[in-house]
Amino acid sequence: MGLNFQIKTIRVGILGVSGYTGREAFALLLKHPGVRLTYVAANNTQGAMSEIFPEFLNRTTLVCQKFDIKKAVEKCDVVFLALPHTESMGVAPKLLKAGLKVIDLSADYRLKSSKVYETWYGHKHTDAKNIAKAVYGLPELFRQKIKGATFVANPGCYPTAAILGLAPLISARRDIQSIVVDAKSGVSGAGRKLSVNLLFPEANENFKAYKVLSHQHAPEIEQYLSQLAGRATKVHFVAHLLPITRGILNTMYVQLKEGITLNQVHSLYKKFYKIEPFVRLGPIGSHPETKNVANTNFSDIGLAVSTDKKMVVITSAIDNLVKGAAGQAVQNMNIMYGFNEVEGLL
Amino acid sequence: MGLNFQIKTIRVGILGVSGYTGREAFALLLKHPGVRLTYVAANNTQGAMSEIFPEFLNRTTLVCQKFDIKKAVEKCDVVFLALPHTESMGVAPKLLKAGLKVIDLSADYRLKSSKVYETWYGHKHTDAKNIAKAVYGLPELFRQKIKGATFVANPGCYPTAAILGLAPLISARRDIQSIVVDAKSGVSGAGRKLSVNLLFPEANENFKAYKVLSHQHAPEIEQYLSQLAGRATKVHFVAHLLPITRGILNTMYVQLKEGITLNQVHSLYKKFYKIEPFVRLGPIGSHPETKNVANTNFSDIGLAVSTDKKMVVITSAIDNLVKGAAGQAVQNMNIMYGFNEVEGLL
Amino acid sequence: MGLNFQIKTIRVGILGVSGYTGREAFALLLKHPGVRLTYVAANNTQGAMSEIFPEFLNRTTLVCQKFDIKKAVEKCDVVFLALPHTESMGVAPKLLKAGLKVIDLSADYRLKSSKVYETWYGHKHTDAKNIAKAVYGLPELFRQKIKGATFVANPGCYPTAAILGLAPLISARRDIQSIVVDAKSGVSGAGRKLSVNLLFPEANENFKAYKVLSHQHAPEIEQYLSQLAGRATKVHFVAHLLPITRGILNTMYVQLKEGITLNQVHSLYKKFYKIEPFVRLGPIGSHPETKNVANTNFSDIGLAVSTDKKMVVITSAIDNLVKGAAGQAVQNMNIMYGFNEVEGLL
Amino acid sequence: MGLNFQIKTIRVGILGVSGYTGREAFALLLKHPGVRLTYVAANNTQGAMSEIFPEFLNRTTLVCQKFDIKKAVEKCDVVFLALPHTESMGVAPKLLKAGLKVIDLSADYRLKSSKVYETWYGHKHTDAKNIAKAVYGLPELFRQKIKGATFVANPGCYPTAAILGLAPLISARRDIQSIVVDAKSGVSGAGRKLSVNLLFPEANENFKAYKVLSHQHAPEIEQYLSQLAGRATKVHFVAHLLPITRGILNTMYVQLKEGITLNQVHSLYKKFYKIEPFVRLGPIGSHPETKNVANTNFSDIGLAVSTDKKMVVITSAIDNLVKGAAGQAVQNMNIMYGFNEVEGLL
Repeated sequence: MGLNFQIKTIRVGILGVSGYTGREAFALLLKHPGVRLTYVAANNTQGAMSEIFPEFLNRTTLVCQKFDIKKAVEKCDVVFLALPHTESMGVAPKLLKAGLKVIDLSADYRLKSSKVYETWYGHKHTDAKNIAKAVYGLPELFRQKIKGATFVANPGCYPTAAILGLAPLISARRDIQSIVVDAKSGVSGAGRKLSVNLLFPEANENFKAYKVLSHQHAPEIEQYLSQLAGRATKVHFVAHLLPITRGILNTMYVQLKEGITLNQVHSLYKKFYKIEPFVRLGPIGSHPETKNVANTNFSDIGLAVSTDKKMVVITSAIDNLVKGAAGQAVQNMNIMYGFNEVEGLL
Repeated sequence: MGLNFQIKTIRVGILGVSGYTGREAFALLLKHPGVRLTYVAANNTQGAMSEIFPEFLNRTTLVCQKFDIKKAVEKCDVVFLALPHTESMGVAPKLLKAGLKVIDLSADYRLKSSKVYETWYGHKHTDAKNIAKAVYGLPELFRQKIKGATFVANPGCYPTAAILGLAPLISARRDIQSIVVDAKSGVSGAGRKLSVNLLFPEANENFKAYKVLSHQHAPEIEQYLSQLAGRATKVHFVAHLLPITRGILNTMYVQLKEGITLNQVHSLYKKFYKIEPFVRLGPIGSHPETKNVANTNFSDIGLAVSTDKKMVVITSAIDNLVKGAAGQAVQNMNIMYGFNEVEGLL
Repeated sequence: MGLNFQIKTIRVGILGVSGYTGREAFALLLKHPGVRLTYVAANNTQGAMSEIFPEFLNRTTLVCQKFDIKKAVEKCDVVFLALPHTESMGVAPKLLKAGLKVIDLSADYRLKSSKVYETWYGHKHTDAKNIAKAVYGLPELFRQKIKGATFVANPGCYPTAAILGLAPLISARRDIQSIVVDAKSGVSGAGRKLSVNLLFPEANENFKAYKVLSHQHAPEIEQYLSQLAGRATKVHFVAHLLPITRGILNTMYVQLKEGITLNQVHSLYKKFYKIEPFVRLGPIGSHPETKNVANTNFSDIGLAVSTDKKMVVITSAIDNLVKGAAGQAVQNMNIMYGFNEVEGLL
Repeated sequence: MGLNFQIKTIRVGILGVSGYTGREAFALLLKHPGVRLTYVAANNTQGAMSEIFPEFLNRTTLVCQKFDIKKAVEKCDVVFLALPHTESMGVAPKLLKAGLKVIDLSADYRLKSSKVYETWYGHKHTDAKNIAKAVYGLPELFRQKIKGATFVANPGCYPTAAILGLAPLISARRDIQSIVVDAKSGVSGAGRKLSVNLLFPEANENFKAYKVLSHQHAPEIEQYLSQLAGRATKVHFVAHLLPITRGILNTMYVQLKEGITLNQVHSLYKKFYKIEPFVRLGPIGSHPETKNVANTNFSDIGLAVSTDKKMVVITSAIDNLVKGAAGQAVQNMNIMYGFNEVEGLL
């Protein structure tokens, strides 16, 4: 007999590891004590991870390969899909069919209606039948479902900050008149893709709105807020590009019919997020800063109320690559596999 | 008789030339063909301008002096006050009494009620009698008054972007339900003052809201919008700090009772600003970027309308130090003295 | 009879106007009182200049066209070539043959030996015969030749800062043991091209050396220093990428055999650049900052000497897009056409 | 009997926790499994750590107190001094006398001669007798001494990058003619102090040299290089300010009398740092980037050799707050207390 400290480890793969969310997932999983990274792949980039990202020099000998479904199935228990939208739906069904668990960081399975998906993403959805199976991986709202899930649709970055910031108020009040989500994101949110407007001299010392009232994250936010509220809920969503690498701050304006005090809103939020390890409500009067959540899985929230008590302003900050993508994906994995939810994330 | 190309030049002084707006006024006036800079002063910094700001090496021999009212009166026709709020009101009455013209870049004379001023700026107003005399220096709305003015209260940076962005809609519609001004400014907007939160490592790679629903520019915006609308008009104003040196972008949400199309709004704005040299309305669907107005006196505007046609989004960008401060001050000076309004500004 | 203020204007074209140096040349020439911009073209981008660069909204109606040699010849007196290296040599001979003057901002005609060019640029030189004709457009050293030139090879950005910083010492001393040029440039120096390492999240909050001891600007610097010194002169050149949009600062270390005092070096430089409108030598002990030359055609220089008096350190700053490219090109044009040398540049 | 997993923990205090290096030490020690943070203090800032640095919200209940020697002695086994230069020497002797171990992050005990200290730091050294006792905390060179130390003088940020980059070559060659250290640091290297030139609008989009050939880190580098070389060794040191928050990159030029090939230098370095957990030598031809070492304790090194084989260029990058300050201090603590050297640092 003897002492048996069998620490459970799971075998994890990442597809699309050469992009920003893939790299972030890689960095987090490399430090996770319950994980063995066994397979990393990308479509257009191959080679040693320490050459693709020299920050991993002396830290890993893993080699990024061209994706091969057979290898993935053989080597992994769970696969993170850090692929561009429209590519996940080509891969996910095969992995699921082979019995693997899948955490999809793309947008392909977040919207419950394939028609809405097609309207906003401009591509036919080729795997509509798995949409129903996908659990939306926002642990603060759907922890129980995630526990039993084999397939998680990891939330978008803006929607994570928006829904976490709005959920307590939306859940509590039925007199909401309108919601404005003025959203700002660092440039890594656009992915590691070659586009003139993402070049340093274009984005640096600059600030602009984009996809004004026409961003594809709006229907994602509306879908889950509607579900929470128990009725159709619309948001006016404007995205902006911040000259920082990582970070999202959403400033949200909720117009109420009846008044509410700052103390009341603050109590409401405090109670709603009482047990949450990753949602931090600052003291009354404080507001989050993106640098305080950079490189963390935290979601920081601040609150204000107008003098007539009918306008509530919620500020909500996350790191778009962590709580807005790879960190939340790891949090979901922790829940799915019974690890401590904060493992590898603090 | 005789050829007479007498080019009029005026003698101009700047108080507070060592701050960011003072420096900007200096740079603009140095190139202005109708101006002789005859006197520059500051309270805490003295010495050759080319030492205080080495960018002016070989470009000026002017020396920044300790302020002396007698010298100012002797040497200047018009004085730009680039002083901190609450300091202008100690100086302006003396200069005015001595017969000089004054363009005040501080907030001291923008609010028509000294009581409102005292509430928001936390200091007693010691020169209430000159408030009435001060013309609000927003040329696009008050050009005729500025022409005859001896005393101009130069608008705040956020209010310039907000009022120019809202004016056409506010003037045209009487069914406005609510106005949100989500405002973002570069760090130079805070002035050249020693404050931990303005240090590079604090502001860099960071983004935050501040003075949420409690910024002193809100009453300034409300005062002039109310005047335009002919009725009390409120805004919900939230300021944010951008990690750029110069630039403001306001994203504004106007909720209407009745619908309007994007074409209608665009036409409305086009007409309103038809003859304006410094307001640029982009093509339908375009939105401004701060870098396109950096180091210019332009105010760029973009428009969007929600699918239900009842929410109008206006994006409005300026350089906070130029159109939001020193450039607009020069524009006012041009109007006051009969120069071409764009002189020294294009 | 009558008053005759015939201001001479020349017709100017720009090829490659959609890149960073092309855009900069456009912005400068648009304000130049002696210039009519008559033709702008690019290979891969066409359309209204105000759409390609919205900063020019309401400022120009020029349309960027696909390059057509016939149109260029018909419409222009002089053409600025803001093309990638290896493309200029395909165009320049045709324009020259048609009798136009040409200012080439690429590297194609800077090196006097086509063999050296081929070694460093990796392409065969297809117009070797015009190399001899090209005058190196560094006015501080070659003003007289530029005056009579029909073809100017505009210097590289790093070489401009290096040669101006080293010229006085190189010219005066024959005891130079070694020269180190530690060069740092903002990202616009790499051009407006799609490359992963130029994306904002890659270049932001980062600093690195590149092409260490193997940068193609080294032979350009060596060629002109050798000419100045009257003997073969080598430099150890290392380039670095700064997370700023525009600006170069070269820190240069010249080891002498015999000593020299700081006062002596300072006097040497002061005398050398006595009449130069665009070279500024700061007071003893001061060193340039890139922000002081940003958006200007100035070249700022600082000096230091080691305690043993045998190591001279020269710091030299320019705006890589202005004095390092388009501004210097305009300065050359001013000289070629007899305009005031600073016209359009102050 | 029974299972006894007694994990040793030590009680650690930080003085000067409100500055950048103090904050960094706090963040690292908070995650260190062998450490209990028992006391944090600062001179001018008091209050909850989660209020001084909201990033620590929900992560600590520690309160920053006014420094009290009695409390420190009572509560700590070891104290990190993250104080400004000249302040450590007032505190260190008392803590040492009380039997605590001390890791001093200031410059007060790095220079072995109090006279040299006084020349460069401009203050009398009031604790000369403890200078001899202080072990220079550069583990890669002095690991054995650190093991038995009760008092460690933690190296400066520039010296860490310079000495690690030069040590292998300096140790191996006796034909070194001259050494240039062209050093560049992010703004946090200047500390969290109120100084106009550290304001965001001054440091942003800017780059400059400072303390040219007169930086106080030069004698520190020279002292330890001389010790390594076994003879007096001089460096020409120029510091520059990078517009990034954290990171140092030193580009160093070593002129040799006899030649060496790149392969030879690379082998030399590979061997020298064979067992080092925190020094990473990239593949031949590669050079470090500050972002690859940001937020890590790594020191990355790259190498190049001139065509005549007599000039060796070494590029060396660290995070100034981690390997250049707090991380290295933790590494020293790990060695002093027999923890795994990388504990809390990977």
